[in-house]
Amino acid sequence: MAKNAVRLNAEIFAAASAVGKKESNGPLGELFDLRDETDRFGQKTWEGAESEMQRMAFNTALAKAECHDADVGALFAGDLLNQCVGSAYGLLSFDIPYFGLYGACSTCAEGLLLASIMVSNAVFDICGAVTSSHYCSAERQYRTPLEYGAQRTPTAQWTVTGSGAFLVRDANRRTGMRASGAVIKRGMPGRAMEKGVNDAGNMGAAMAPAAQDTLVRFFQETGEAPENYDLIVTGDLGFEGGSILEDLMRAEGYPMGERYTDCGKLIYDRERQDVHGGGSGCGCSAVVLASYLLPRLERGELRRILFMSTGAMMSPDSIKQGQNIPAVAHLLEIERG
Amino acid sequence: MAKNAVRLNAEIFAAASAVGKKESNGPLGELFDLRDETDRFGQKTWEGAESEMQRMAFNTALAKAECHDADVGALFAGDLLNQCVGSAYGLLSFDIPYFGLYGACSTCAEGLLLASIMVSNAVFDICGAVTSSHYCSAERQYRTPLEYGAQRTPTAQWTVTGSGAFLVRDANRRTGMRASGAVIKRGMPGRAMEKGVNDAGNMGAAMAPAAQDTLVRFFQETGEAPENYDLIVTGDLGFEGGSILEDLMRAEGYPMGERYTDCGKLIYDRERQDVHGGGSGCGCSAVVLASYLLPRLERGELRRILFMSTGAMMSPDSIKQGQNIPAVAHLLEIERG
Repeated sequence: MAKNAVRLNAEIFAAASAVGKKESNGPLGELFDLRDETDRFGQKTWEGAESEMQRMAFNTALAKAECHDADVGALFAGDLLNQCVGSAYGLLSFDIPYFGLYGACSTCAEGLLLASIMVSNAVFDICGAVTSSHYCSAERQYRTPLEYGAQRTPTAQWTVTGSGAFLVRDANRRTGMRASGAVIKRGMPGRAMEKGVNDAGNMGAAMAPAAQDTLVRFFQETGEAPENYDLIVTGDLGFEGGSILEDLMRAEGYPMGERYTDCGKLIYDRERQDVHGGGSGCGCSAVVLASYLLPRLERGELRRILFMSTGAMMSPDSIKQGQNIPAVAHLLEIERG
Repeated sequence: MAKNAVRLNAEIFAAASAVGKKESNGPLGELFDLRDETDRFGQKTWEGAESEMQRMAFNTALAKAECHDADVGALFAGDLLNQCVGSAYGLLSFDIPYFGLYGACSTCAEGLLLASIMVSNAVFDICGAVTSSHYCSAERQYRTPLEYGAQRTPTAQWTVTGSGAFLVRDANRRTGMRASGAVIKRGMPGRAMEKGVNDAGNMGAAMAPAAQDTLVRFFQETGEAPENYDLIVTGDLGFEGGSILEDLMRAEGYPMGERYTDCGKLIYDRERQDVHGGGSGCGCSAVVLASYLLPRLERGELRRILFMSTGAMMSPDSIKQGQNIPAVAHLLEIERG
C-alpha cells in the first residue's frame, strides 16, 4: 500500500489577497490586502475582473517578498471558470513556468501542496500558488446570470469574490528575504470520490465525505489526532457540509470539537450577510488562509493547524446528465516557523 | 534568474491507449490498445464515453504493469471538458490521490512532468498520468453540436478521440515489475503566453510561439541542440502550427529539419481522412506517445527524443470577449532506458 502523507518543509514567505465588496464587508474585511467595492477591478467583464484579481494578488505577494518573477521557478494556478481562464489570462504577464490546475475549490491546497513538494525537494527554489473565484462569473457559468434574480436554496453557498496568492521556499534556506513564520510540514493529497449527492445546491454535503477521507487517512498514517492541532479548518464546506463532517469524524472516532471550523463560515456574517450555506469557491480558503490564518500563525496565536481545501468537481453538464458530484480534499499541516 | 530545466530519472514502465473510429482508421490505427468503432465506449453520452476511455486506458496500463491502485501514490489527470469532468468521473473508481490538471492539450506532458518529478524525488514510488479528448464532446463544447454540420476552416484541427495513460517510477528502482525501456531524463515546464492570435480555428498558430519559447529556453539552458535528438515532436500544432514552429526555430538559429514532426500530423492520413489542419486535443499527443513513440524507443528505433505537448488555454467565452489565445508547451526529454 503506497503511503500518501508527504513530508514537506516549505515556508510560505509571502501571501496576498484581493477581494470584492461582500468580502470587504464581512468579519475579516479589514484584513484583506486589496478590496474593490465594485467587484470589477477596472475590467469590462466579470471574467476579466477575476483574472485581474489574480494578477493583483500575485503581484502583491511578489512585492511583499521583494521578489521578481525571474526568481520564481514555477507557478501553480487554477480557478473555477471553464478552461481555467481566470488563471490563464490573469497570470499571462508573469514570465514564469505555468502549471495549470483544476481541483475546483480544492485548488488552493492543491497548488500549495505541489509548490511545497517542489521547493522541499529543491526542484525549484521558489514557487507560487494562486487561485481565485468570482461570484458573478461563477453564478452565470454554474447557475444563472445575475440579472435573472434566481432564488437560492437554504444549503446553497455564496461564491467568494477573491484571489489568494502565495510564495513558498525551502524553510531551511531563509536568507535575505522576509520570513512569514508559517511552514508547511506535511501534506496529504485527496482521493476523488462521490457518495451519492447530486444536488448542486448542496455542495457541502457532496464534499464532506472527501474531507473525512483525507483527514482519517492522515490521522491513521501519521498517528496524529485532532487534539494535536490548534485548529482544523476546511475550505468551503460551509454550515451544512461542516456539520456533516463533524458528524462523520465523530463516527470515525476523531471528534474535532471546538477546534474545527471552515473558511466558508469565517468569511461572511451569517446573520447580517444572507449567504445561506456560507462561502465557497477557490478564493474562499485562499483569502482566509492568506489574510487571516497565516497572520495568526505569524503572531503565535496559532502554532499548528490542519488546513484543507475541498473541491466539488462536477460540471453543469454532468449534473444535467444525472451524475453524482465527485469531490476531493487536499490537506496541509502548517506550523508556526 | 531561476533555472527552469528539471533533472529527472523517471521510467515510463507502462503505457496504454484507447481511441475511437477515425484514429483506428488512421496510419497508427493498429498500434492502439483499445479501439471502439462507435466512439461511444458503451456510454449514453459523449462526455461519459470520454470518461470511460480514461478508465479503460488507465486500467490497461495498470494491467500491463501488473500493478494495483494501492501501489500508485498519485494520479495526475486532466482533459478539455468544462471542469475537467472527463478525468474527475473517469478516474473515480481508482482509490488513488488525485491531482486535477488543466493545461488544455499540454496536459499529457504536464502530467508526465509532474509525475516524473514526484518519483524522481521519491515523493511517491509510482505515479500515474492520464488524459483524454473526444471529438464529439469537444465539438459541442467549443464549437457547435455535431448535428449542425458546421463547416470547418482550412486551418481547423480535428480533436482526437482518445485517451493515453502512463505509469512512471524511479528509473533506479527497477525490481520485479516489467521495464518499458523509456526514461524521462529532463523536463522543461512551459510559460503561458499569447502572441496576438485570436482565431479559435487556428490554434496551431496560437500555440507555436509557446513551443518555440520552451524549446529555445531548453536549448539555451542545457547547451543541447536539435541535432542531438533523433526526433523532436510536438503535441498538436498540426500542419499550420508545425510549419510556423519550424520557421520560428530556424529564425532563432535552431533549424530542426527532418527530425521535427507533430503528433497531429502522424495520427491521421491527411489525404484520405479530411482533417484539414491535423489532429489536436489532449488525447492526440498522449496516444501517439503511448502507442507509437514509446514502443519505438523500446525497440531502439529511437534513442533520444524531445516530446512536447502544446496547449491553447482559451475558453469559448474568452474568445467571444475578444481575448487572444494564451498557450503553453511543456517539454520532456525521453531516452531509451
